[in-house]
Amino acid sequence: MRHIWVINGPNLNMLGQREPDKYGDQDLESIELQIEQKAQDLDVGCTFFQSNIEGELVGAIQDASESDGVILNAGAYTHYSIAIRDAISAIKAPVVEVHISNVFAREDFRQVSMIAAVCRGTISGFGVMGYILALTALAS
Amino acid sequence: MRHIWVINGPNLNMLGQREPDKYGDQDLESIELQIEQKAQDLDVGCTFFQSNIEGELVGAIQDASESDGVILNAGAYTHYSIAIRDAISAIKAPVVEVHISNVFAREDFRQVSMIAAVCRGTISGFGVMGYILALTALAS
Amino acid sequence: MRHIWVINGPNLNMLGQREPDKYGDQDLESIELQIEQKAQDLDVGCTFFQSNIEGELVGAIQDASESDGVILNAGAYTHYSIAIRDAISAIKAPVVEVHISNVFAREDFRQVSMIAAVCRGTISGFGVMGYILALTALAS
Amino acid sequence: MRHIWVINGPNLNMLGQREPDKYGDQDLESIELQIEQKAQDLDVGCTFFQSNIEGELVGAIQDASESDGVILNAGAYTHYSIAIRDAISAIKAPVVEVHISNVFAREDFRQVSMIAAVCRGTISGFGVMGYILALTALAS
Amino acid sequence: MRHIWVINGPNLNMLGQREPDKYGDQDLESIELQIEQKAQDLDVGCTFFQSNIEGELVGAIQDASESDGVILNAGAYTHYSIAIRDAISAIKAPVVEVHISNVFAREDFRQVSMIAAVCRGTISGFGVMGYILALTALAS
Amino acid sequence: MRHIWVINGPNLNMLGQREPDKYGDQDLESIELQIEQKAQDLDVGCTFFQSNIEGELVGAIQDASESDGVILNAGAYTHYSIAIRDAISAIKAPVVEVHISNVFAREDFRQVSMIAAVCRGTISGFGVMGYILALTALAS
Amino acid sequence: MRHIWVINGPNLNMLGQREPDKYGDQDLESIELQIEQKAQDLDVGCTFFQSNIEGELVGAIQDASESDGVILNAGAYTHYSIAIRDAISAIKAPVVEVHISNVFAREDFRQVSMIAAVCRGTISGFGVMGYILALTALAS
Amino acid sequence: MRHIWVINGPNLNMLGQREPDKYGDQDLESIELQIEQKAQDLDVGCTFFQSNIEGELVGAIQDASESDGVILNAGAYTHYSIAIRDAISAIKAPVVEVHISNVFAREDFRQVSMIAAVCRGTISGFGVMGYILALTALAS
Amino acid sequence: MRHIWVINGPNLNMLGQREPDKYGDQDLESIELQIEQKAQDLDVGCTFFQSNIEGELVGAIQDASESDGVILNAGAYTHYSIAIRDAISAIKAPVVEVHISNVFAREDFRQVSMIAAVCRGTISGFGVMGYILALTALAS
Amino acid sequence: MRHIWVINGPNLNMLGQREPDKYGDQDLESIELQIEQKAQDLDVGCTFFQSNIEGELVGAIQDASESDGVILNAGAYTHYSIAIRDAISAIKAPVVEVHISNVFAREDFRQVSMIAAVCRGTISGFGVMGYILALTALAS
Amino acid sequence: MRHIWVINGPNLNMLGQREPDKYGDQDLESIELQIEQKAQDLDVGCTFFQSNIEGELVGAIQDASESDGVILNAGAYTHYSIAIRDAISAIKAPVVEVHISNVFAREDFRQVSMIAAVCRGTISGFGVMGYILALTALAS
Amino acid sequence: MRHIWVINGPNLNMLGQREPDKYGDQDLESIELQIEQKAQDLDVGCTFFQSNIEGELVGAIQDASESDGVILNAGAYTHYSIAIRDAISAIKAPVVEVHISNVFAREDFRQVSMIAAVCRGTISGFGVMGYILALTALAS
Repeated sequence: MRHIWVINGPNLNMLGQREPDKYGDQDLESIELQIEQKAQDLDVGCTFFQSNIEGELVGAIQDASESDGVILNAGAYTHYSIAIRDAISAIKAPVVEVHISNVFAREDFRQVSMIAAVCRGTISGFGVMGYILALTALAS
Repeated sequence: MRHIWVINGPNLNMLGQREPDKYGDQDLESIELQIEQKAQDLDVGCTFFQSNIEGELVGAIQDASESDGVILNAGAYTHYSIAIRDAISAIKAPVVEVHISNVFAREDFRQVSMIAAVCRGTISGFGVMGYILALTALAS
Repeated sequence: MRHIWVINGPNLNMLGQREPDKYGDQDLESIELQIEQKAQDLDVGCTFFQSNIEGELVGAIQDASESDGVILNAGAYTHYSIAIRDAISAIKAPVVEVHISNVFAREDFRQVSMIAAVCRGTISGFGVMGYILALTALAS
Repeated sequence: MRHIWVINGPNLNMLGQREPDKYGDQDLESIELQIEQKAQDLDVGCTFFQSNIEGELVGAIQDASESDGVILNAGAYTHYSIAIRDAISAIKAPVVEVHISNVFAREDFRQVSMIAAVCRGTISGFGVMGYILALTALAS
Repeated sequence: MRHIWVINGPNLNMLGQREPDKYGDQDLESIELQIEQKAQDLDVGCTFFQSNIEGELVGAIQDASESDGVILNAGAYTHYSIAIRDAISAIKAPVVEVHISNVFAREDFRQVSMIAAVCRGTISGFGVMGYILALTALAS
Repeated sequence: MRHIWVINGPNLNMLGQREPDKYGDQDLESIELQIEQKAQDLDVGCTFFQSNIEGELVGAIQDASESDGVILNAGAYTHYSIAIRDAISAIKAPVVEVHISNVFAREDFRQVSMIAAVCRGTISGFGVMGYILALTALAS
Repeated sequence: MRHIWVINGPNLNMLGQREPDKYGDQDLESIELQIEQKAQDLDVGCTFFQSNIEGELVGAIQDASESDGVILNAGAYTHYSIAIRDAISAIKAPVVEVHISNVFAREDFRQVSMIAAVCRGTISGFGVMGYILALTALAS
Repeated sequence: MRHIWVINGPNLNMLGQREPDKYGDQDLESIELQIEQKAQDLDVGCTFFQSNIEGELVGAIQDASESDGVILNAGAYTHYSIAIRDAISAIKAPVVEVHISNVFAREDFRQVSMIAAVCRGTISGFGVMGYILALTALAS
Repeated sequence: MRHIWVINGPNLNMLGQREPDKYGDQDLESIELQIEQKAQDLDVGCTFFQSNIEGELVGAIQDASESDGVILNAGAYTHYSIAIRDAISAIKAPVVEVHISNVFAREDFRQVSMIAAVCRGTISGFGVMGYILALTALAS
Repeated sequence: MRHIWVINGPNLNMLGQREPDKYGDQDLESIELQIEQKAQDLDVGCTFFQSNIEGELVGAIQDASESDGVILNAGAYTHYSIAIRDAISAIKAPVVEVHISNVFAREDFRQVSMIAAVCRGTISGFGVMGYILALTALAS
Repeated sequence: MRHIWVINGPNLNMLGQREPDKYGDQDLESIELQIEQKAQDLDVGCTFFQSNIEGELVGAIQDASESDGVILNAGAYTHYSIAIRDAISAIKAPVVEVHISNVFAREDFRQVSMIAAVCRGTISGFGVMGYILALTALAS
Repeated sequence: MRHIWVINGPNLNMLGQREPDKYGDQDLESIELQIEQKAQDLDVGCTFFQSNIEGELVGAIQDASESDGVILNAGAYTHYSIAIRDAISAIKAPVVEVHISNVFAREDFRQVSMIAAVCRGTISGFGVMGYILALTALAS
């Protein structure tokens, strides 16, 4: 059975409480549940990980090196973490970048992605469905 | 029955012939066929349009105003067409931006999207599957 | 009798439908009618032209070369069309740049006009009245 | 009877003497006379003010707060006076920005207007007629 | 017999009338005649194409894909058309960029060529002779 | 008894009338009264000064050279007045920069302070209380 | 009783040892003691937290969400941590930014604050007294 | 007898007191005396003017229009006053720019002179002697 | 006996596995062994530390304050960690910056070092030997 | 008989040895021979000069002042030598800029030509044939 | 007797022939003669040096280290020669920068002086008299 | 026996006299002696070269093409010499860049190295020892 990692970055543990008009009102646990159900349909196993700490995200990406793929929402680190970029380059598994909100419609400093160039692809602006689309993409 | 438009911009009529390592070896017709089949599964009607002319793309987007959604690969115009941006802002239907290649891994001038900020979301780097993911997103 | 051209660019065919709080609720036809009435008062003939296609606007400006003046709302092309700038430089008739909304109060990329430097003057932010002011200016 | 202010900034007291090919050969007094005559036709009262001092222009704009409109040629201060911008934002009367020459055809540092974004509209490049067009616009 | 395309962009249909001190006083027809005569000497066939419309230039370049070379004066589009750049990259024939005037001695925005990097070479500043030099280069 | 100056710049004479949601609804006089009361508690004398004129602010700062401190809200001049910066550098008394609103949450051109580097410290975003905090700081 | 958090970022655990001419010679413990005494006077409870790890600061800010306010000296992270910015935006409590030294008088890269725009206000350059002023501001 | 103006800008009334290591320890009065003595030797009359107010400097330059030359130390206004630049352009007399200190060895924002391009020449870094050199230059 | 620290940053725990053509095929453990042997020859003691977490690197640098020197390969953090820069400034021991690959031959964002200015020196591009050279430098 | 100079700059003495895939495998001597033969056909005399030293190239251009033209490949100096630019401006003979490789397809710093604006024209990307085309252009 | 060096850079050997409207019609020899006569009046000895070669100018500046001053017109090298800047920093004698034309009224790339910051002062725009003023300044 | 070149650029002939606190008090001759002694220990022959002239440094690098390595301190040319960069690219021998002072702790224009990207590696900030470290690196 194929296995993927779903890695969420800083402040995504606040989903549901944090600016619900921008990020929706589901909390992270319920989103992870939805992803898991979809994964079961696709016969894919999932490991979930969330951290506010950049270096722990680096570590989780390294740990996923031998998996069949990583769905990564690096949150704010997307825009400046060269360390996460290097971790993505260093591993074997393909990484898909996901954003819940449409980052292109927000502040200037969110227009830059340090990681997009080394990811397989990017899905942005579709809310929670973005994770499901990414899972579908990795599974096929 | 819901109805969507699939609008492709300049040089996408060259798919299959043009740099196949970057854009794949399917031609546009066969891609449109795949999209149509998926659309039938989802009970969605499709109108297909391709043009190399910026203003004709503006016109097509305007024509799609009352539809249930637009899947738009504006090709090179993505990076500088304020006219297409304004057309997207002017219509009622939601627009999803699709790119076949990972534009973030290419030249600097392809890092800027004039249209992403006014689209519902963006899907980039998944080849032909990007259209299918966009269709899935619009259909749900 | 003197004769002028009134040339409108991309998405101005959507006037009345498109973001009415920004562009007003009159459609282009009724605006052209108002301009024509004012022109008759001033004993000036008018040719009206609208296109979404940059190159057709270039062509219309060239066609107006021998007229007594051009009122040009180049819409989004204002901000990047060097082709339209060159057409203005290439003709004999004076060109007046008009914008319905106050472009200076909008996005950064709308702060740049590629054409203002080669126009006789600019009128911006007065809604439909901007065309009438431009006509008055050209007629005197 | 409606009442407007006509406020002119630095070096506009030199009109007629200063680079006549760029600014025309009428002096400020004769221009103010022309505006006054037009205003009488439109049944509008006028207060005229000129100063080389930025802060006095700020004061005059504040004094015009309850009037029916301000025609403002802020001269060189257009390009850097945030104080004048703030005064425009602070008052109730609408402000129309006027320039005698086409500022867009001049040096780079004249391409920036600190005040355009908070004005109702801008009229540039029509010589003395610009004031008359602005008056017409405010009066209607 | 080898065959090449000679493609001219926006406003080049105005040659002879437009700023003759910058672009010379020959019209496009007479220039094409000169090129044709030189081509006959070199035993090369020619197709001529001119359009003001960016997307039609994209189409013409695509049509020339199987020819022995393209001489392209993309006019104003040189400086911003990523669509034309992509068309050049997409075809098999080598493309030579020609400019009548010395673009490097003109405005800043003409210092950037979006297409030079994907052309075989560039010839600029030699007036009509530039086309002849390009033809010589392609023919050898 | 120690003595300080409280110097307010352009448009601060409009407090209470000007955009009350941003600047509060107290007028300058009542704010000065509050400061004076606090100053009496701290056994500090106060001189109050307001001007819209940059050069008069320069003069007031020079006049405060021998005082025990200056509380300066330079308003719009904060962002471009090198003259005020030089006056601050030229005097002996320490200067504290105060802003009523949070300038960092506003337009880009308000992110730059020409004077912060030569002030003792900066207090921004606390409304009228900012003056009281500054007084407390200078008094201790 | 109201309760606030006092959160200090990287290298502030070195206070007293680190460049004392810039940061003073008190260590963090003695500063926290001073704040606590002032807080008692104001009848406010305090939680103190210091970390060198960006993500732990994110976590501490999240933990303070329901408190009556946060005094935050994010140290070096001030200038680049979008993660901390997002945490501030995500919580309910108001946050006051404090800096011991006058950051505006230091290197260019310290002129940018990623967090000021989402804080209630900023106090900079007053040494340890900055914390006391912030406490006073939050308490009133 | 020829006549020149010697115009000094903001904070130059503080000479002798202000940062003497940078600006010397002579006050403005004694410098003006030295200039006057040199002028008498050269049989040139002098008018002296100093103001902290930008607009008064504009006025003084206008007043000097018919003189035989202006020696201008615009102080801080050098770096941003387009109004002073315009006044220099507007008058007939030649203007020489003088700076006491070497502005090129100071902060970045002092590297830009808004006025140098419209002055006859610039003398910078020679202390009080700069005025004497400028006088010599204008007199010959 | 003198003592130094050898501190390695994010993803350097992946050495040997990660892009071996760029970083070589030795793992970190074997590199540390080589350094230790060289250190013994030079009669120097070594402490080794690696972390993916920026704040833990800050802590390790603080811990090395009293040592005889630090060899620091901050990996990706080199390019943006002001926190690490401040830690280097805060300690007494000299720090030598080492990079395995030639960072100057890589992406633009790797051309900036936030830490080089506060290090004693930099050694870049010599692979594992860079650590040995740094040790030699610190030991002499 | 007409006479021209062919001037080659730094590292062009390495032709044939240096990166042959970029610059071809002919050495400079054999290229000069080809040019000379073509020149004889056109009845033009040639002087050849090569130097690695910027100032010697300046001198050679000065020496060619009275000739009928200069073919100049300034090599790396193209991109930063204002001294060579000034020499070109200072002489009477027309100068044609030649590059062997397509500089527009290389590093960013090679996109800038300090000399193109003062040359008659530019030929780039045609290998050795570029010199022949330049000769043809100068001879006609 | 005091002794100074007068060092002229690239293309100044062309004075009299080169763009006489910008640089005057005297040749370098006659200018040096004028300087020498003035020097004799001031009882100062002179060494004259001119070279087109940057490194020879570096050498001449080094040779002047023990003299009483250097008058340096570095010509085009002014704008980019860090080597000449370093030579000025390395010697003991004071250096005065002279320009014949007003460089501030010319191209953008001439607005930057790499050397002004390390010179004693700058004199620009006074033609040949600039050298005499510089001599006067150094002699006093 | 292996052979290397040690090439020093502009102003390095002033070592010992020039700003000794930055560059040390040894002269170049004594440094070369130290390098030679170390080279003998490593059984490596050395050729030494110093010039202030960029093009002579280009020539020396070309001459070293067949050697076993080049130690290059290009001095000020490091920051702008594309000619030296091209020479390094053109030769077969590996080049090591050395700087005596820590260039990263100096002016902004010294933060750019035109040559680092084409060198094998860089050693900066270790004084004279930098040459010895470079020799060690090349020899192993």
